[in-house]
Amino acid sequence: MDGRSRGQRGEGRVTLTEVAERAGVSRSAVSFVLNGRTDLRLSADTSARVRRAAEELGYSPNATAKTLRTGKSGTVALVSDFIGTTSVANSMVRGVLESLHDADTLLYMVDSQGEPSLEERLLRSLIDRDVDGIIYGSMFTRTIAVPTLLRNAPFVLLNCVSEDSDTTAVIPDEVGAGTTAATALLSAGHRDRIWFVGVFPPGITGGGSWHGWSPLALTERLRGIDAALAAAGTALAGRASVDGDWDVAGGRSSVAKLLASGAAPSALICVNDAVGLGAYQALQDAGLRVPDDVSVIAFDGSPLATAVRPALTSVALPHEALGRLAAQLLLDREAAPRIHRVPMPLAPGGSVSAPRSVR
Amino acid sequence: MDGRSRGQRGEGRVTLTEVAERAGVSRSAVSFVLNGRTDLRLSADTSARVRRAAEELGYSPNATAKTLRTGKSGTVALVSDFIGTTSVANSMVRGVLESLHDADTLLYMVDSQGEPSLEERLLRSLIDRDVDGIIYGSMFTRTIAVPTLLRNAPFVLLNCVSEDSDTTAVIPDEVGAGTTAATALLSAGHRDRIWFVGVFPPGITGGGSWHGWSPLALTERLRGIDAALAAAGTALAGRASVDGDWDVAGGRSSVAKLLASGAAPSALICVNDAVGLGAYQALQDAGLRVPDDVSVIAFDGSPLATAVRPALTSVALPHEALGRLAAQLLLDREAAPRIHRVPMPLAPGGSVSAPRSVR
Repeated sequence: MDGRSRGQRGEGRVTLTEVAERAGVSRSAVSFVLNGRTDLRLSADTSARVRRAAEELGYSPNATAKTLRTGKSGTVALVSDFIGTTSVANSMVRGVLESLHDADTLLYMVDSQGEPSLEERLLRSLIDRDVDGIIYGSMFTRTIAVPTLLRNAPFVLLNCVSEDSDTTAVIPDEVGAGTTAATALLSAGHRDRIWFVGVFPPGITGGGSWHGWSPLALTERLRGIDAALAAAGTALAGRASVDGDWDVAGGRSSVAKLLASGAAPSALICVNDAVGLGAYQALQDAGLRVPDDVSVIAFDGSPLATAVRPALTSVALPHEALGRLAAQLLLDREAAPRIHRVPMPLAPGGSVSAPRSVR
Repeated sequence: MDGRSRGQRGEGRVTLTEVAERAGVSRSAVSFVLNGRTDLRLSADTSARVRRAAEELGYSPNATAKTLRTGKSGTVALVSDFIGTTSVANSMVRGVLESLHDADTLLYMVDSQGEPSLEERLLRSLIDRDVDGIIYGSMFTRTIAVPTLLRNAPFVLLNCVSEDSDTTAVIPDEVGAGTTAATALLSAGHRDRIWFVGVFPPGITGGGSWHGWSPLALTERLRGIDAALAAAGTALAGRASVDGDWDVAGGRSSVAKLLASGAAPSALICVNDAVGLGAYQALQDAGLRVPDDVSVIAFDGSPLATAVRPALTSVALPHEALGRLAAQLLLDREAAPRIHRVPMPLAPGGSVSAPRSVR
């Protein structure tokens, strides 16, 4: 330490979130105190703690020299397919807003519902209105073709990637997530009877609801799982397909079929939480307990995972962090274009334990 | 019938949704066919069915003479607190988009996160950008004060009401929802042992997460329940409070406490689906089965309700219909200002049956 604060040393902008963490209060409370608002009652002690933390960290609300805002409209847009109209990925928007709020920049969200002609009109209308930059987002992780109009403004891809090498993109580290799931099971003692639940039936590349897009998540999660198991000298016992959407009913019938086929899994890795809940139900119907008889782990970290007992252990989509980083990259434009992969943290529930045979 | 189509007779604009229903296809399919898109493969038969249905109903993509669009920017805004950033009410946006899409109008969404100063900047920026109208929405139903700036554009309140008599607002019929829930239980034979789960503890008027707003939903649902039970000559056996948020843990501990107190409910009316799931867990812990020993009904109709077994019977928030109507009212501005209440439909699960004693 050289006596200067981190902000003063120029080691990156100090965010409201960091001030909040240091002061041990909510981010909103920091915003209220530092913006001098009085409509929310906070104790004098809290206010003092916030001011002290801000000073110690070198937080400056005006430290936005590197933002797009200078001399511009102070507005950026989030153009997505379905982020604003489905419940899957809202927290990405929260992350975007957090970064933009720190930079005093407004956000317009638009959803194209996946219709290219509507997307084109939306992009044109936003560019006409002088937005300073565009975050181009997808509800779920996939490869996209960069729309030509997007190149009329600075842009960052959120939860999607393109094959163009000149783009900056932020996606979840799905390969790492697969590794995390497999490693959690290996650490608990599972080995040769681990099944994956959620591949597509032969000849199908995507659920009907999502315009036939083949999600990157599936292939990358499987790649991580396969690599982790191979490194431990084993492999998946098999991959069960889910017909139709990755929902509770799909998971239930897939696992029911698997059990009826005589398979005796010690653990199931489910492609998402809804399929995991379906697995719970099929196991219960077969008189099997989670995790005593069969461990279950899934992906997404959605509210469904904590709505059941035992809570479903899940590798969580880092939606808020994705949004936060995408907005930061849009604001601080000196970084070279590349794909940023955000780690997916394990959200432990109570659905993984040692396999029956090794107890 | 006078030989003319409904569209020709001027009995209201025919929507894509109505064409879709008549043709027995999805709304997207109708949009694809009528907009001449070829990137989604539809059978010749489907295309022909859609065109026939559109013709029979007198659908015209140009029948938007009454819209705000004429000579204007063709863009409206949805200004809300949290609709874009939480997963509660996204389907409102879907409804808004559906109406706007039919009227060839674009939508910008902005979320103020409930911060008045940010809201003011957002409103100013949108008005500067010549939006033709504003839908002012709230994540959950409440009474709001109309921001002064809002009066610079035509506006409609979505999922909130004001005390000003000159405003047009669209909210769920929460009183009717309470009546529906109580009536469902009365019809099944319940009478004197019906408990409500989800009032606030004494002295508290709202969950901590939502800025202390007191939701209209709670008071109005209770009003409907009380009225329906009174009409049948009975009343609630009691009202159990939920500490903290209306989530699974809150519902579980509330119902656990209720059962421990010696109460023997025949049925529980839970303030929302998450509390309903908590009720399931507390009942299970007490060795009671749903619905054999205790019936459970809730409000919201969220994905949680169908993620459990038996599926939770729930009175559904009509979010999509609310959004659709709000956008229609903004587009078709001749209607007198008033509060429009949209019915909340019963989404039957398997959690209500006859009470034990009357079998």
